[in-house]
Amino acid sequence: HLMEQFNPGLEKLVALGNSYVKAFQALAVCSEAYFSAVAKMGDQALHTLSSHSLGDVLIQISETQRRLTAEMEGVFQWFQVEVLQAMEKNIKLDEEYIEGSRRVYELEVRNQAEALEKQLRRGAYRDSLENSDYMIYLRQSQQEILKEEERRYRFLAEKHCGLTQSLLFLVNKTGTSLQQKADGWKEKVNETREPRNGWLYGRTDTSLRQGWFPAAYVAPVEDFSIATSSGSVRSHSMNNLLDTDPSEARGHGDVPPPVTPNRRASADFRPFSP
Amino acid sequence: HLMEQFNPGLEKLVALGNSYVKAFQALAVCSEAYFSAVAKMGDQALHTLSSHSLGDVLIQISETQRRLTAEMEGVFQWFQVEVLQAMEKNIKLDEEYIEGSRRVYELEVRNQAEALEKQLRRGAYRDSLENSDYMIYLRQSQQEILKEEERRYRFLAEKHCGLTQSLLFLVNKTGTSLQQKADGWKEKVNETREPRNGWLYGRTDTSLRQGWFPAAYVAPVEDFSIATSSGSVRSHSMNNLLDTDPSEARGHGDVPPPVTPNRRASADFRPFSP
Repeated sequence: HLMEQFNPGLEKLVALGNSYVKAFQALAVCSEAYFSAVAKMGDQALHTLSSHSLGDVLIQISETQRRLTAEMEGVFQWFQVEVLQAMEKNIKLDEEYIEGSRRVYELEVRNQAEALEKQLRRGAYRDSLENSDYMIYLRQSQQEILKEEERRYRFLAEKHCGLTQSLLFLVNKTGTSLQQKADGWKEKVNETREPRNGWLYGRTDTSLRQGWFPAAYVAPVEDFSIATSSGSVRSHSMNNLLDTDPSEARGHGDVPPPVTPNRRASADFRPFSP
Repeated sequence: HLMEQFNPGLEKLVALGNSYVKAFQALAVCSEAYFSAVAKMGDQALHTLSSHSLGDVLIQISETQRRLTAEMEGVFQWFQVEVLQAMEKNIKLDEEYIEGSRRVYELEVRNQAEALEKQLRRGAYRDSLENSDYMIYLRQSQQEILKEEERRYRFLAEKHCGLTQSLLFLVNKTGTSLQQKADGWKEKVNETREPRNGWLYGRTDTSLRQGWFPAAYVAPVEDFSIATSSGSVRSHSMNNLLDTDPSEARGHGDVPPPVTPNRRASADFRPFSP
């Protein structure tokens, strides 16, 4: 029964796992293409008069994402070698093993049965049939079969615990370094939003009215709830990640301050608010 | 110059980003197929006499991975809507805006130049040319162009800071819950490795010799360095993830203890060591 289900199941897992690895490799190629294009934009910005530090941020974001992808590639390679290849090897070995131990078992059962028969024929048998070597062997074999079954499922469970562990290791490592970097990037981007002529562009917390406010009355960005700063997660629930404010992203950046009203951009980012 | 580089660059990013999202969706399909097959194996184990708790672990691992994939899908949807679609919208709006402001600028420059010419012809011009309204307008426009450029790169940088933030949010959330689960799974798997007749199978730390050791002399699994427990990351460096010990994974589970030597499995997992 076990022999009929386990190894075919493992074979299917190996095939699906190999497709999974291939799909990840395709993703890694796309990620590399995307973030190398981001780095190129960053490099352009680096050579402008206006946006040197923003270019720096873009290049760093791109580098970090590329490194993260490379590390995920490491996890998938580990998965391929330590889980998929190990399972594949085991299928073959296990089939040989099952074949071999079945032969040993059948031979032994025949020998024991013959011995028991001889004893019974000679009338030399003293114990009950239930305590005969033959029955003890059968019960022992049954126990061993259960242990074999457990060993197989433990192998599968341990391999996938290992996958979780290697993912967890990466997650923990990433969390710490990414947090520091992300904070630094945000700060650097915010530094480019300096007050102009004492005015800052933003949106009020209460009326959501947009416009220019005296910088002296405006709280720094860091005091803001994540919910009102653009370009970042606006909620701690991932379900709300898609809550898009339609008034956002109508253009690049902000409108010019009141003192120089001759040019108007079409956008309304809300970096500040009184 | 900016107009010639920025929007085509953004267009390319949108196209590459859409491929990236599609590649992730393909990965998510493969992940679902793989972990639903793992869950099926877990369900089989759940219905055995020997491996109920291992089946439970396999089903939980599968569920956790599926949830993680669903959450990564959330990040990619956020990326698609908040970054890619926002960039796409901006390309169109920005082209219209550039067209419009170029007309305004050219008209204004012509008017200012004509006014300056009239003043000069009437001899009514008192200030130097450098301080004329015309020159002031040109300098102001140059300043505005730099600000526009900065706004565009800030938009790009903020959007990608947002991507990092949403990834970071997921990483932090995952790290905490995954750690607790992974520890629980490991414990549950190790519980299936109980001493048999006072003996435990393992490998010595010093000689790496495998065999059965008296359970009383053997340290519990939890005391172990990750480096010797099978099925988990054996090093804190991701570079070593691929260091495969060729003596490993030769079969399922362990060999039977010395007391019952009639059946021998072909494998040599090393869950314990003295």
